[in-house]
Parts: sequence; C-alpha cells; structure tokens
Amino acid sequence: MNRLLEEFIFKRLPNWMKLVNGGLGIDYPDDAAAIPIGEKYLVITTDSYTVTPIFFRGGDIGKLAASGTINDVLMLGGTPIAALDSIVVEEGLEEDVFEKILNSMFDIFKVNGVSLIGGDFKVMPRGQLDKIIITTVGIGIAEQLIADKNLKPGDKIIVSGNIAEHGITIYAEQKGFLEKSDLRSDVRPLIDLMIPLFKKYKNEIHAASDPTRGGLAATLNYWASISNTAIVVEEEKVPVRDVVKNYCEVLGLDPFNLASEGVAVLGVKSEVAEKILEDVHSIGYEDAEIIGEVREKESASLVIARTSVGGYRIIEPPVGEIVPRIC
Amino acid sequence: MNRLLEEFIFKRLPNWMKLVNGGLGIDYPDDAAAIPIGEKYLVITTDSYTVTPIFFRGGDIGKLAASGTINDVLMLGGTPIAALDSIVVEEGLEEDVFEKILNSMFDIFKVNGVSLIGGDFKVMPRGQLDKIIITTVGIGIAEQLIADKNLKPGDKIIVSGNIAEHGITIYAEQKGFLEKSDLRSDVRPLIDLMIPLFKKYKNEIHAASDPTRGGLAATLNYWASISNTAIVVEEEKVPVRDVVKNYCEVLGLDPFNLASEGVAVLGVKSEVAEKILEDVHSIGYEDAEIIGEVREKESASLVIARTSVGGYRIIEPPVGEIVPRIC
Repeated sequence: MNRLLEEFIFKRLPNWMKLVNGGLGIDYPDDAAAIPIGEKYLVITTDSYTVTPIFFRGGDIGKLAASGTINDVLMLGGTPIAALDSIVVEEGLEEDVFEKILNSMFDIFKVNGVSLIGGDFKVMPRGQLDKIIITTVGIGIAEQLIADKNLKPGDKIIVSGNIAEHGITIYAEQKGFLEKSDLRSDVRPLIDLMIPLFKKYKNEIHAASDPTRGGLAATLNYWASISNTAIVVEEEKVPVRDVVKNYCEVLGLDPFNLASEGVAVLGVKSEVAEKILEDVHSIGYEDAEIIGEVREKESASLVIARTSVGGYRIIEPPVGEIVPRIC
Repeated sequence: MNRLLEEFIFKRLPNWMKLVNGGLGIDYPDDAAAIPIGEKYLVITTDSYTVTPIFFRGGDIGKLAASGTINDVLMLGGTPIAALDSIVVEEGLEEDVFEKILNSMFDIFKVNGVSLIGGDFKVMPRGQLDKIIITTVGIGIAEQLIADKNLKPGDKIIVSGNIAEHGITIYAEQKGFLEKSDLRSDVRPLIDLMIPLFKKYKNEIHAASDPTRGGLAATLNYWASISNTAIVVEEEKVPVRDVVKNYCEVLGLDPFNLASEGVAVLGVKSEVAEKILEDVHSIGYEDAEIIGEVREKESASLVIARTSVGGYRIIEPPVGEIVPRIC
C-alpha cells in the first residue's frame, strides 16, 4: 500500500500540488489535510467506508462512517463542524436497510453537533457492488494542528481505552465465531474526549490518532517514522480485554494489529502525562493507560514492546490482507 | 431518487444540521455546498464517480472525476484550489490500469492549478466491486456564490457547447455501436471558461450548472423549480451535432436527457447575454448559443421547448435507468 502511494501518487505530483498555502497535504499522510485560513486551520478529511458485514455487533457502516469522519477531524486538532456524504449502493438494496444505515449516520452527526451540508447518491447495477460504500468528507476548524511529526523524545504515549475491540469483532463476525462472547465493536465518536483536552492542553498534545486500519502497531510505527524517533511500549500496560486476548490467540491474531474505532492514542508532554490521564479517566474513559514513551532513535525509527517477562519484541507495521479487509 | 432524498434525508435532519453559518446546505441541492468565511465562501463538493466502461473514447474515469470535481466547484461560483480523493478498487485491478487512471486525474488537476491535498485508498475483495469507484472532494473559494435559485424572469439561457456528447458516447460504448462514428465524450474542466466570466460578470450570472446526470432537461427543470419560474427553450437553437441526433434517433434517446461533461449552462441577465455569448465564443467555445429565456411561471414551474415547426413540447425531468447508469 505504502509502495503504491509512493510510486503512483507522491512521486507523480509536483510539490506545489501536494498542499495549499503551507498547510498539511497529501505527502503528509496524517488523519486529515489542513489549509491555513487566517490564524486558524481548515481541516478536511475524506474516507471511504466498506465493511462486511454492514451490520455488526455494536454498530453498522453508517455509525462507522460518521464516527470515523468526526474522529479523523479531531485527531488533527480540529473541531468538527460539517460533513458531506457520497453514497454508492447496489441496485436493489432494500429500503429499510438503507434507512437504518442513514439513521445511524445521522444520529451520530446530530448528537455531536455536526451539520450534513451536502452529498451525492449513486446506484450501481446489481453485481457491480456488494451492497454499499459510504464516502464521507469531514470539515473542521483547528486553532492549533496536532501534526504527528511533532512527537518528541521524552513524550508519553496514552491510549484512551481497550484496543482491538472493533477489529476482533468484525473478524469474529466474518468467521461466525462471535455468538457466545460479549465482543462488540467500540465504534464511537471521540468528541467528548478530545474537545476538553484541546482546550486544556493546547500545546502539550504533540500527536493524536485513532488506531483504525492496522491498529496500534500501524499508528505507532507511523509516528516513529514521521517524527524520527523510537517508541517503547510496556506491553502489559496496553489495555486489552481478556476475551479479546483469548480470541486473538485462538485465531492467530495480534491485538496490536487490530482496529479500534473508539480509541484515541495521544503523544503528550511527559510533565503533564499523569494529569492528562486523570482527565481522560474523569471524562469517562476509565480504561485509559500510559503505555510507553518516546525515545531518541538509534539506528532506525522503530517501535519496541517490553514484554511482561522483561524481554523485548519489535512491533512491525502490519501488512497483508487483514488491513484493508476489515476496516 | 428525489423521493428517496426527501424521505430519507431532508425530512430526517433538523434545520440546524442542513447548513453551516447561513451558507448553502444539503436541502439546497446545487452543485456544491458553501460555508461563509469572512467576506468569502468556502465551496465544497463531493461526488462518487462510477462509469462503465472505465476507459471510453475521449477520456476515462480519472479524467471524469477530476473534471467533474473542478466543474462542480466552478458552477457555484468557486475558484477551485484543492481536491481530495478516496479510491476504492477491486482486489486484483491491474497496476497499469490503476496508473493510467491516476495519471489522467492528476493531469487534469495539475493543468488547472488544483492541489491534491489528501485522500484514502481501500481495496475490496474480488467480486464485491466492479473495478473502481473514485470519490472526490473539491474545495474552492468564491467571492460571490452563483446559487441557481437566483434565476429571474427575463434572464437568458446560454449553453457553452454541443450537448449530450458524453452521454451518447458512453451509451454507444456500452451497446457496442461506437466504432465507425466520430463520437467522443466532451469531458473537460471548464476553468478556462468560467474564471474570466466570474471576473467580468460578477453580478450578472444568476445561475450556472454543468448538465451531467439527466442532461439539459434535468438542469433546466431543477432551475425552474428552485427559482419558481418557467423556462422556454428554442429547440432548434440548442446545439446538438447531427451525429448525436442520429444516434439518439436510432437508439430512442432524447439528447436533452443525456449527460454533457464539458458544457456549462448559464442563466444570465438579459442585457449582457449577447456580450457574454461573444466572450464565450472568443474564449474558444465556438458552439455556444443563447437557447432560450426565463419567464414568470403561470400555473406551475416548468420547461417548454418551442419546436422548429412552431409547436411546443414540455421537457420533463428525466427518470429511470439511464440517469444513474451512465454518469
């Protein structure tokens, strides 16, 4: 995927085309793009949502699309104000299915004060598309961008909740293994968490991401590489529920590689890390933990986990089929 | 489609959710949405592009997506500055196909000074999608919005070139009838046409659209209904090439219903209509014509064509399969 992006996209574009007015552009693949407007930034994100099954325990593709859109704007430091949607459905998709999905999407936008100001709707002939693809545009205003390249040695890494819940749920749904467990997707918008943090810690949050596609492993590897650092994680501090661990073991999966859709990963100034953690807990994200810290890189940028028995393992960026398929 | 939008979307959203800050929102289905920013407007559009075949005479889905994005921003009065793309491909799509499509898209953006500042890329399992869907976001800045509801009785209607060229080409490609004709899609960005007109006729262009899905019939019916007017078209003034007419006759199609992807329809103040037409010609759009005028509505908003033999026919908004399938 990275090779494709590099070879087919980044290399082909002249520099002026990659960004506008000194903002964040396409060769800086953060959660969103940004265009400076006066003293502030316009934050814009787009994402196409496909998921099988379209209804899953804990949500559906509509809730996923709206939450993901809001979270992508937030993770660049933006307050979401508006969204647009472009929906492509297979001819013959049942009206009540379509209605349920739209209502899920609208509800999330409505509760979070995000307007839906435009969109597009297309129908593809039967057989050319499996059910539905929702592409969303998220628009926000940021006083200050949280650009993940600003992560610094010494910073602490906080995760706001149990990881891998969405990824394992979808995987188990697909394989028919879900039934008797209490697994459910964690999909939700993180506006209640992030907006108070922006206000209180304007300059102390150096990086923020939602670990969706490729999970925590992808997020931290991307952070290390873009900020030219090494990240050391205490594996036993990373919050993963036992049921998720057990499923991962049986299915041969690593929770570090599985998507969360309702978790924020934050890279914060060491001095305020404990205070931020307390605030995150008091907002209601009780499973949040400080899971590690950022170091100077030695030979290469990388992510290492210290295991409970005192050894180390390198956390590789995840590759392969699971990444595109379930997010 | 209108019923779906009304029933499932517009009715469900509280008023505050439909727009931002007094701009143009989702229940005003123009070519794009707008958010006031200071004295200007941020113009935002999104569209999902699907077309069969993905390579057609005169272009491909990449050129179509980039041109359509630029044109949608222009038709609301915006100068396009940036775009984002979200591409979903079927697993196994050949790299050289993907590369050709991307290059077509990039070329259009590049030549027109539009940055590509972000995007998303997803792969769907084989069989769940036929080849590729490109969803784009277009972003522009408008000094003055061209909101089609401002069309007024007395205004003249100008089309910038021969209509129906894209629609008939795609249709003929699909049916295998294309070979010996000189049909080709007219897909192209209209930045060279529109930007000079914005500058010179800031207050005299009351409405602008590119007659894509549903063709001129859909555009004019939408204009009449949103501006509460009647539009009378001189049928013989509407520029349609003979080859297109002949194809339409054989295939039982009406050129008024077929998409153009490189034509602007303008509703302009009567006093400057001839001057604007001259300018449009001198910019290089030599087939442009004044095709009709706007009247007070009598019993209902509608579009009427005066035929060459002096009779009248009502131009209905097109419905049915051809509309979603070929655009």
